[in-house]
Amino acid sequence: MRRVLVTGASGFIGRALLPVLVGRGFEVHGVARKARPAVAGVTWHAADLLTEAGRRHALSASRPTHLVHLAWEVRPGHYREHPINRLWADASIDLLSRARACGVSRMLGIGSCLEYGPQSAPCEERTSQCRPTTLYGRAKLATAEAYIAAGATWGRVFVPFGPHEPEARLIPSLIRSLRAGEHFACSHGGQLRDFVYVADLAQMIAAVLDSGLTGAVNLASGEVRSLRSVIEHVAGLLDATHLVRFDALAATGLDAEPILAADVRRLRGVSASVPVVGFEERAARTLAWWIDRLPGRG
Amino acid sequence: MRRVLVTGASGFIGRALLPVLVGRGFEVHGVARKARPAVAGVTWHAADLLTEAGRRHALSASRPTHLVHLAWEVRPGHYREHPINRLWADASIDLLSRARACGVSRMLGIGSCLEYGPQSAPCEERTSQCRPTTLYGRAKLATAEAYIAAGATWGRVFVPFGPHEPEARLIPSLIRSLRAGEHFACSHGGQLRDFVYVADLAQMIAAVLDSGLTGAVNLASGEVRSLRSVIEHVAGLLDATHLVRFDALAATGLDAEPILAADVRRLRGVSASVPVVGFEERAARTLAWWIDRLPGRG
Repeated sequence: MRRVLVTGASGFIGRALLPVLVGRGFEVHGVARKARPAVAGVTWHAADLLTEAGRRHALSASRPTHLVHLAWEVRPGHYREHPINRLWADASIDLLSRARACGVSRMLGIGSCLEYGPQSAPCEERTSQCRPTTLYGRAKLATAEAYIAAGATWGRVFVPFGPHEPEARLIPSLIRSLRAGEHFACSHGGQLRDFVYVADLAQMIAAVLDSGLTGAVNLASGEVRSLRSVIEHVAGLLDATHLVRFDALAATGLDAEPILAADVRRLRGVSASVPVVGFEERAARTLAWWIDRLPGRG
Repeated sequence: MRRVLVTGASGFIGRALLPVLVGRGFEVHGVARKARPAVAGVTWHAADLLTEAGRRHALSASRPTHLVHLAWEVRPGHYREHPINRLWADASIDLLSRARACGVSRMLGIGSCLEYGPQSAPCEERTSQCRPTTLYGRAKLATAEAYIAAGATWGRVFVPFGPHEPEARLIPSLIRSLRAGEHFACSHGGQLRDFVYVADLAQMIAAVLDSGLTGAVNLASGEVRSLRSVIEHVAGLLDATHLVRFDALAATGLDAEPILAADVRRLRGVSASVPVVGFEERAARTLAWWIDRLPGRG
């Protein structure tokens, strides 16, 4: 029996991942501090993984063969400099050691493109020099190094979007503003980013978990788009491009970086079966999901 | 104008303190991450004090002359060993420095009897040797030392109880169990503790703040009672002593210490005006408050 323990299982990426793992035949165990969304075939465990007792409980209650570690502090507007992510680095490294000691055979930690920091070329896992400029990026990178040194796998997520995305992030806040008939203020929008639909990301994570790949691997679409094109596309679907105010805010820090792109050759080697679907189709799905959940002009 | 900034203002002690400070003529500013209970005369500020940006915002938005710092992680069952309280120690010390730099004239940090650790005699602020046995106690003590060295004031709370107490703590969970007609399992109950009613504690904090006292001061009733007598008294009020199971659980760690008592001579020097009211009257008030809020047998 293959049993996978998913941390952060009630979060944005976690809830997309759970049904994919169930579909691949895993016995799926989710751990969360409190929230337990109903997902068919998932056994839940309540634990605070920042505590040693929580980590011990999560592992002993699920006795996993596989681990996908998603849980970190990622609240929009807070997470990049929040000192709690220093504790998440310590907890993540301790979880890895404990999982190995319990005989977990395959361990996949989930990191972030913020580990790379500013880069002039697409980020490549083994040749790009990481220069994180945020506390979050530095804490994730320190954790990545421990996972990679231990022979585990480390996925770096670029810009995920889709159902259940925290509402203060770009696409949900854009949809919310435009649906309410309000202006949406943003920067010039020329920055290029790799947006990855959360259900596709879940397929990629599952494919990596099921492969023998170790070390770092980018989890991204491989396609870069300007923030302007993303915003204009979503606003166009809502027939509300006139409400968008480009150049109304100054981008700062990493948000001002002209490009953050992913080299996805390592990923493609193990996720060839993950369908490549364009941004436009994913944006339409995302919008439909939010339209059902947000107040609007009817 | 005297303006006081209260951190942790939406918590168990904070919400009892706010009206007392309003009554003493302070312009009261509360800071909390989210929750903002309606309290007449209080201006609220949203900030996460674990972040530097949150600390800067709380001080610049309120421009206080006085500071009462209550905010820490105190969730029952978690807080004693939760590593987040290391961050609260760092944040508390940084808040002190920033408050001094902003010209705050009077600063009162709130600590805990857990700073003392096991003691054979009543804890006295300047002569008892602190031997904390928990991460929380050590983190509070390190913070206390920084506050005291800076000429600020540091209050050590013993065992608070009363309205809005977190439901997993002793008295609320006892009331909940007995009201539901369920057994209540506890240890032998011989441990002696100093229980302090939260509204009295609020009066003590305000009196200390309004005094010139610096250094550490115990915030306690000065009266010790056995857990058994507390439990039996509350159970008696509910006519449910038959539901209490003493000796059904083993007390461990600090909970097993035979006595944790407070020397309250320093406190009495500044809070002579705080009425001394017995436990029985306070227990009756507490019970009445919970009865309105808990499901029961009618």
